[in-house]
Amino acid sequence: MSATLYGIGIGPGDSELLTLKAVRLIAEVPVLAWPAPLEGDGLARTIAAPHIPAGKTEIAIRMGFTVDRDGTEAAYDRAAEEIAAHLDAGRDVAVLCEGDPFFFGSFIYLFARLSPRFPVEVVPGVSSIMAAAADLQAPLCAWDDGVAVIPATRTEAEIEAALAASDAAVIMKVGRHLPKVRGVLQRLGLWDKARIVERVGLPGRRAHDPATVTELPYFSLILVHRRGNAWL
Amino acid sequence: MSATLYGIGIGPGDSELLTLKAVRLIAEVPVLAWPAPLEGDGLARTIAAPHIPAGKTEIAIRMGFTVDRDGTEAAYDRAAEEIAAHLDAGRDVAVLCEGDPFFFGSFIYLFARLSPRFPVEVVPGVSSIMAAAADLQAPLCAWDDGVAVIPATRTEAEIEAALAASDAAVIMKVGRHLPKVRGVLQRLGLWDKARIVERVGLPGRRAHDPATVTELPYFSLILVHRRGNAWL
Repeated sequence: MSATLYGIGIGPGDSELLTLKAVRLIAEVPVLAWPAPLEGDGLARTIAAPHIPAGKTEIAIRMGFTVDRDGTEAAYDRAAEEIAAHLDAGRDVAVLCEGDPFFFGSFIYLFARLSPRFPVEVVPGVSSIMAAAADLQAPLCAWDDGVAVIPATRTEAEIEAALAASDAAVIMKVGRHLPKVRGVLQRLGLWDKARIVERVGLPGRRAHDPATVTELPYFSLILVHRRGNAWL
Repeated sequence: MSATLYGIGIGPGDSELLTLKAVRLIAEVPVLAWPAPLEGDGLARTIAAPHIPAGKTEIAIRMGFTVDRDGTEAAYDRAAEEIAAHLDAGRDVAVLCEGDPFFFGSFIYLFARLSPRFPVEVVPGVSSIMAAAADLQAPLCAWDDGVAVIPATRTEAEIEAALAASDAAVIMKVGRHLPKVRGVLQRLGLWDKARIVERVGLPGRRAHDPATVTELPYFSLILVHRRGNAWL
């Protein structure tokens, strides 16, 4: 029986939002891997830290924040080989994933490389979009609402088409795209209904009023519902 | 200080997919409420059961599965008053919510009624769409993918517009709408890429091949990605 690769969702930031299953596997699996910046622990390890037993073998998957796609692919190739060496030696490996592993998670690129060779189990986690709705006390969707999740990097026309085809939307990673996103939402009469939060679940978390917000960091989200509130 | 209403996401079915925070609050909060069919415990209580201490005060929010919206509103009115009586008496109340409370959750209707009168805290949970991606080993989205969540009750034109405006989609609660959904996906050349699961996270869970599926229950989901796989 081959060793197993686990992709473990650890939620949006609060160390109490790990699932029981994530906590159990972090304790049981002998090797932990986690995405990290070029120096330091990174967010995933910090979130999971209270649940990591002492003496665990750990692999930091180091990657610059601004590397190009080719550079990113090379970094995942190296990380996959390091993880594969443990799996080949019969040691299970758990990869810590902020939020949910398969919802914009970097685990996807390790899964692509390693799932043809090893058994994989994915433990879903609480995603930032659910955490943002809870934080802002803004129900995301109800009844038979259609929902669009839209990265703010998309073009104006793409954002507008996705909003037109849905009742509710989550616009992710707003950052420097704020003027574009605000412009589209204003044209559609939705800007006044926007709920905005940066760094949800993290230190420095801050909600914003659409009337006064002037800038947002990369880790920010806008929720908007066509009816204003999902329950109407 | 008024008593607090908690909306607690308990995840998609596996009792180990509750968060540590959900488990702590279920232990601490003196009154638990849970949505239920006209007889029996219902899914939410069954999922949370291993974590419910003996002797807890419990409120079953009973509702027929097929009641009209007026009947549903009346049932939520009654449940809100029963919960408000505990809160007025200084007793915190935790409402158990399958998946995430604010993502198509019935907690939204209690929140609408009670949040003007009482402090509320929402604990986000693992949603069925994340659980389905993990179960099917089908990453939902990566890079700057746009994602549509589409209830299968929507019209063919609405489903087609939402699919056209996104890279990845989750079609929820397929059930008797299977022929319509399949027709739209076939027209768009996406049916062969569909991943299908019924009762994800629950007893009777079953994945289906798009080539052979003939019927699906209400609790079923279709995941589809325009590129076939999110990592491509």
